[in-house]
Amino acid sequence: MSKTKTKPVLEKIVDSARDVQQKVLKGQKPVMDTPVRSLANVKYLAKRGHFEMLGKSKKRTLTVSTVKTFAQTLKMMALAKELIVTSDMATKREAYYISKNWGKAGFAEQPESDTIMDDIEAMFGVNREQLKFIPEEKGGDVAGRLVVIDKDAKGNRLRIDCTKFGSGAYSIPIDVEELEFQGRADFILAIETAGMFQRLVKYDYWDKANCILVSMGGVPTRACRRFIRRLADKMRIPVYAFVDGDPYGYFNIYRTLKAGSGNAAHLNQYFCVPIASFLGVTPQDIIDYKLPTHPLKDVDIKRAKDALRNDPFVKHHTEWQAAINQMLKMGVRVEQQAFAKHGLDFVVNEYLPAKLKNTKKFLP
Amino acid sequence: MSKTKTKPVLEKIVDSARDVQQKVLKGQKPVMDTPVRSLANVKYLAKRGHFEMLGKSKKRTLTVSTVKTFAQTLKMMALAKELIVTSDMATKREAYYISKNWGKAGFAEQPESDTIMDDIEAMFGVNREQLKFIPEEKGGDVAGRLVVIDKDAKGNRLRIDCTKFGSGAYSIPIDVEELEFQGRADFILAIETAGMFQRLVKYDYWDKANCILVSMGGVPTRACRRFIRRLADKMRIPVYAFVDGDPYGYFNIYRTLKAGSGNAAHLNQYFCVPIASFLGVTPQDIIDYKLPTHPLKDVDIKRAKDALRNDPFVKHHTEWQAAINQMLKMGVRVEQQAFAKHGLDFVVNEYLPAKLKNTKKFLP
Repeated sequence: MSKTKTKPVLEKIVDSARDVQQKVLKGQKPVMDTPVRSLANVKYLAKRGHFEMLGKSKKRTLTVSTVKTFAQTLKMMALAKELIVTSDMATKREAYYISKNWGKAGFAEQPESDTIMDDIEAMFGVNREQLKFIPEEKGGDVAGRLVVIDKDAKGNRLRIDCTKFGSGAYSIPIDVEELEFQGRADFILAIETAGMFQRLVKYDYWDKANCILVSMGGVPTRACRRFIRRLADKMRIPVYAFVDGDPYGYFNIYRTLKAGSGNAAHLNQYFCVPIASFLGVTPQDIIDYKLPTHPLKDVDIKRAKDALRNDPFVKHHTEWQAAINQMLKMGVRVEQQAFAKHGLDFVVNEYLPAKLKNTKKFLP
Repeated sequence: MSKTKTKPVLEKIVDSARDVQQKVLKGQKPVMDTPVRSLANVKYLAKRGHFEMLGKSKKRTLTVSTVKTFAQTLKMMALAKELIVTSDMATKREAYYISKNWGKAGFAEQPESDTIMDDIEAMFGVNREQLKFIPEEKGGDVAGRLVVIDKDAKGNRLRIDCTKFGSGAYSIPIDVEELEFQGRADFILAIETAGMFQRLVKYDYWDKANCILVSMGGVPTRACRRFIRRLADKMRIPVYAFVDGDPYGYFNIYRTLKAGSGNAAHLNQYFCVPIASFLGVTPQDIIDYKLPTHPLKDVDIKRAKDALRNDPFVKHHTEWQAAINQMLKMGVRVEQQAFAKHGLDFVVNEYLPAKLKNTKKFLP
C-alpha cells in the first residue's frame, strides 16, 4: 500500500523538477503552477461531502524578483523527495530549521516555509503527509474494538490491540498514512472531550456497543481527522460525532471533521470524513432529556448566525438550519457532560443506546 | 496498594462528617477548617524541592450566610465518598452537573463547584484524584522501556508494553493513581513538544538509550506530572527535561514539572517531580551547538526578569540565575527542533548522547 501511494508523489516531484531543468537548459523561463488557496476558489461538493477547489491558479515564473521563492520551492521539493526515499519524515518546524543550511535560500521565519509547503502540497494535489512533512500536533486517543497494524523502527510488524489499554488509550501518531487496521466494530464514535472519552472508557462502552472510541480533544487535528477517515474507509463502518451542543461543537468541531475547512480546501479530500453524521448533543436533546444548560454567549450567537448566512455546508442542509434556529430560539447551549445530572452511567446506559436505535434521524 | 491509599481518605471524610454531625446533635455550630490557598501562604522547601503551604487557614462556621456553601461542601464530600466506595470517578464538570440534582445546594456555575472541590482537597491534604475527582484534560504520551500494569473494566490485569506501539504511543489516562510499573529503564526523558517526541520515537531513541520517553505537549497536565512523579518514585530513576530554550520552557514547563506552581501549593507534594533536572536546551547550548535562534520577545524578557525577582525557585538556584542572565545578555531564544539544522538525526546521535555523558552538569 505504501508503494502505490508514495510512488506517484515521487514521480510528480521528479517530473516537475525535470520540467524546470529542461526549460532552463533551453534558455527559457521555467514556470510553476499552484492552485489559489482561498475561500473564493472553493465550492461545496454536496455529493462527495466536502469543500473542493475551483480551477484558479497562480503561475510563478522564474524572474529576478521570484528567484528566491523559486529556489526555496525547489529545495523544499528536494527535501520531500529525500524524506520519501529514506522513509523519514520532518515536522514543519524541522523543515524550517533544515533550510538554515540552504545558504541564501534559507527561510527567515517559519511562516515562510509553511507557505511554500502549502503551495507544493496544492501543486501536487497531495496532502503534506504524503510529502512526509508532518504537523507538530499529535492526533487523538483511541480505545475499543480495533487492532492497528504498525511497524517498529526495525521494520517488524506490530499488532496494537486497542482493547488492551485499560484506563489509558492508544495515542494516534502524527503520521497515519502507513497504518493498517483490523477488527469488526459496528461504528466509530468521535468524541469532543477527553473527559467524556474517559467516562466511556471507564464504563467499558466500547465493549457494550462493539465500537471504536476516538477522543478528538477539541477541534480534531489533521492526524486525527485523517486517522478517522482512513479507518472509516478501510473498515466500511459509520462515524458518529458526539460533541457539545453549541456552535463551536457544531461548526468548529463537527463541520471540520465532516466537510473540512475553507482555507485548506486543497486538503479536504484527504482529511474530511463525509460519512460522519451527528449523534448529539442536539438542541432537541436538551428538551427530550431535560438537560441543564447555559445561556448562549454573544460569540455563540454570532457564530450561529454567520453559519446560517455564509457556511456552504449549513446552507446545503435544511436539517442543520432548523437545528440552529431551534438553538437560537431556545437561547441555550449544552455540554456533553450534562447527562451526569441523571447519574454518571446515564450517558452509557440510556442516552447513547436510545440515540443509536435510530441513526437515520442523526443530523447530516 | 489501592486500599492503603484510599482508606485514609475515606476515613478522613467520615471523621470530618461525624464531627459536623455531633456538633449539630449537641446544638453547637459546626466548623470546617480549610488552609488558605494563595501565594502568601506558601514557602519554597528547597530540601524537598517544592512549594508548600504555611499554616494559615480559614474557618467556615455554619451560620445563615454560610449555610449554602456548608451544605455544598458536605454534599461534595458525600459524592467523593460514593465515588471511592464504588471505584468510580467524576470529572470536575460531571461533579458540577451531578449537583444539579442537589436542590438548593446545586451550583449555579462550574467555578463554584471547582472552588469547593479545591477546598476539600486542601482540607484533607490529598490530591483531588484521591477523592476520585479527575481533571478534564488528558495526560501525555509515553513510548519506551516501560510496562504499565492496569486493569480492564472487569478487573483483569493488563500488561501494557510501551515498546510495542510503533509510531504511536501509550496515552496516559486522566487518573493514574492505581497504575503500576515494571521495567529497567535508565532514565525518563520528559519532552516539551509532540514533534520532538515523534522524532525520538521515529529514530528509536528509547531503544538506543534504554529510556522512557514522555511527551508533555506543552505545560504538563496534572495527570502527566503525577504519572512522571509516580514513575520516578517507583522505578527510582532520574527524570531529565528537554524543552525549548525560552522563559516559557524554563518556568511554565520545567519549573511547574519540578517544583509545582504557586497557586496550587497544597498539591505540589503530589504533583511536583523534585528529582527532575534540566537537560536542555540551555543558553550555553546555543553557543556550543551553533543553533539558529529567534530574538527574545518582550513577553520573554518580562517573564525572565519576573522570575529573577519573584520566583522562589529561581532565587534559590544561582545556576538558574546565571542561565537566565546569559539568555538575557544574548537576547535570543531557541526551539528544541533547532538541532535539525545539523540533520534530522543530530539530536539523537550527537546532542542527547553528548549531554547525557555529564548529567551532573544539568541545571537543577
